[in-house]
Amino acid sequence: MPETHAHRREALRALITAADLDALLVTDLLNIRYLTGFTGSNAALLVSAAGESGTVFCTDGRYTAQSATEVPDLERVLERASAAALAKHGSANAEAFRRTGFESQHVSVEAHESLRGLAEGIELRRAPGLVERLRLVKDAAEIEALRMACAAADRALADLVEHGGLRPGRTEREVARELEGRMLDHGSSGPSFETIVAAGAHSAIPHHQPTGSVLAPGDFVKLDFGATVDGYHSDMTRTLVLGAPADWQREVYELVYAAQAAGCAAVLPGIEVSQVDAAARGVIERAGHGDEFSHGLGHGVGLEVHEAPSLAATGAGTLSAGMAVTVEPGVYLAGRGGVRIEDTLVVRDGGPELLTLSSKELVVV
Amino acid sequence: MPETHAHRREALRALITAADLDALLVTDLLNIRYLTGFTGSNAALLVSAAGESGTVFCTDGRYTAQSATEVPDLERVLERASAAALAKHGSANAEAFRRTGFESQHVSVEAHESLRGLAEGIELRRAPGLVERLRLVKDAAEIEALRMACAAADRALADLVEHGGLRPGRTEREVARELEGRMLDHGSSGPSFETIVAAGAHSAIPHHQPTGSVLAPGDFVKLDFGATVDGYHSDMTRTLVLGAPADWQREVYELVYAAQAAGCAAVLPGIEVSQVDAAARGVIERAGHGDEFSHGLGHGVGLEVHEAPSLAATGAGTLSAGMAVTVEPGVYLAGRGGVRIEDTLVVRDGGPELLTLSSKELVVV
Repeated sequence: MPETHAHRREALRALITAADLDALLVTDLLNIRYLTGFTGSNAALLVSAAGESGTVFCTDGRYTAQSATEVPDLERVLERASAAALAKHGSANAEAFRRTGFESQHVSVEAHESLRGLAEGIELRRAPGLVERLRLVKDAAEIEALRMACAAADRALADLVEHGGLRPGRTEREVARELEGRMLDHGSSGPSFETIVAAGAHSAIPHHQPTGSVLAPGDFVKLDFGATVDGYHSDMTRTLVLGAPADWQREVYELVYAAQAAGCAAVLPGIEVSQVDAAARGVIERAGHGDEFSHGLGHGVGLEVHEAPSLAATGAGTLSAGMAVTVEPGVYLAGRGGVRIEDTLVVRDGGPELLTLSSKELVVV
Repeated sequence: MPETHAHRREALRALITAADLDALLVTDLLNIRYLTGFTGSNAALLVSAAGESGTVFCTDGRYTAQSATEVPDLERVLERASAAALAKHGSANAEAFRRTGFESQHVSVEAHESLRGLAEGIELRRAPGLVERLRLVKDAAEIEALRMACAAADRALADLVEHGGLRPGRTEREVARELEGRMLDHGSSGPSFETIVAAGAHSAIPHHQPTGSVLAPGDFVKLDFGATVDGYHSDMTRTLVLGAPADWQREVYELVYAAQAAGCAAVLPGIEVSQVDAAARGVIERAGHGDEFSHGLGHGVGLEVHEAPSLAATGAGTLSAGMAVTVEPGVYLAGRGGVRIEDTLVVRDGGPELLTLSSKELVVV
């Protein structure tokens, strides 16, 4: 793992140099985790374009031992005000840190004011999104973590169904809790977002929070949930039906199923993200349900459960091999019920690699 | 509840006026929840100093129904880019929003640049911490939520001990999971932070993450955990011992116990926060263990599990009645074990009100 992080820092140095900077002050904790493996709650990292020897990591005394283990390969400073300490370090070594970028999409206006005051003799320049640009394309270690997170969710769903966890009379909240528990059984460190269990008419609410209302025969049950492994998130939605589906349920399910398949098929290197959205949305629009698909098609997934790229009509840019994205169309019939089907997949030459492997056939329980 | 939120907005208007502003653009989701009750993941709020009729709430289409229920009493706008929409609203009504403050401690440098471009004809001024200043002193609804969160944690611990959940051979992770599950049983919506279960030598690590290592006879087991109720967090640490305590364990426990009692006794309106820290720290220092108490004494707790005020040697300001804080001294003997004892309490005239009621006598299990 240390080699992986060193390799990521080396890739960042190319971006720092290309941005005409001497260094980047990294303050976002996820970006720091990505670049160093550090998992604590306070840190800053000053990445010198010149190389590892000028690069300094800072955390506080609570993490002395942890940082020695997790970040064995960098100079370490222990200070509570970690970003401030590294701004001062830059100032004290002004020759090497003359033009230091900062993560202006994360640093608040107030924090910037205060850093500016400390970084005497060096210039703090806005440099948003450099590490995020690297994070767009996942490396092998990241895809392995995503694979494990997706597997934990798949297994949890299989266990839930197999053990009769989805049955009339249970509350949405009970189902959510069982699903989360079963993900822990399979290696998740916690749900990757608030688990959605939406039964009956609730399934027509795209982001329904589980309530005490009970599952009833004939209900759609929409489950949108994810596991976390090594900080990486999975994201999957399946919609099942309790008992024999009505004709309208079969119809809406088949429509979303077809849209989701079309969306997945469009996931290829080089395609505009808006075109992936259009591939799935077109299927739903042609069936006259365009207004009932009220959100974007998908999003990137990694250290954040929602990250770039956005697979939406308004999204910009193209897909590249190694990106991890969700494809999750839905049709929501207010007051009746809705269906969403979502996978997490990796963009690959020739066609996407599916990480969430649970069946997408209409499951009747 | 709508009256509670209207009352908080009214209190905020006094601060807006005192800051010589016409309005405040609130973009922090916790501050928005505090001021409106909205619990969704995207929102902005433009609070006019003039009153409720000029005040506008914005969220996106996913939350149409939820915002109608949670925020029935304000003008609502539905736009995905919620802060941008309200900046434009201010610009279109420039007379009323001439000097609009923004939450400069939360708004990033990039977001500020973009808002500035949209807020034509009005001035966006840095106005950090106005809502946080209100949140320092908890109102009755907040204290009730804190009380319920603390009760959920108390009951979970009692259940854990009563049902033999703390026994040699179990892993730290198993204990953490049981504790979190039992908090859910008692009304928690989720752990208020990553549960710490640290057994044996691990108890000497202040912020240890639970591992697969097993509890052994004679171990200290340090449990630092909290529940969440209505968005409010509890925070409690208890250190128990598995079997008969050794003399050194009894000694360090009694020392921390005395320091914690001294810290709690110092929690009074008007006292400097650094003095509360000193009251507890002095006990530990006089026993020659000052270097082994490596963190601050405590912190405010509410919608965030760590919020102002900071009860630390370097903290500034005084306590006021109605603040909710933790008092959590610890002594950590590297390689052997450590003890931390932590309560959540409310500052009251005459002496603090304890919200975490679990016994602080050394519990032998």
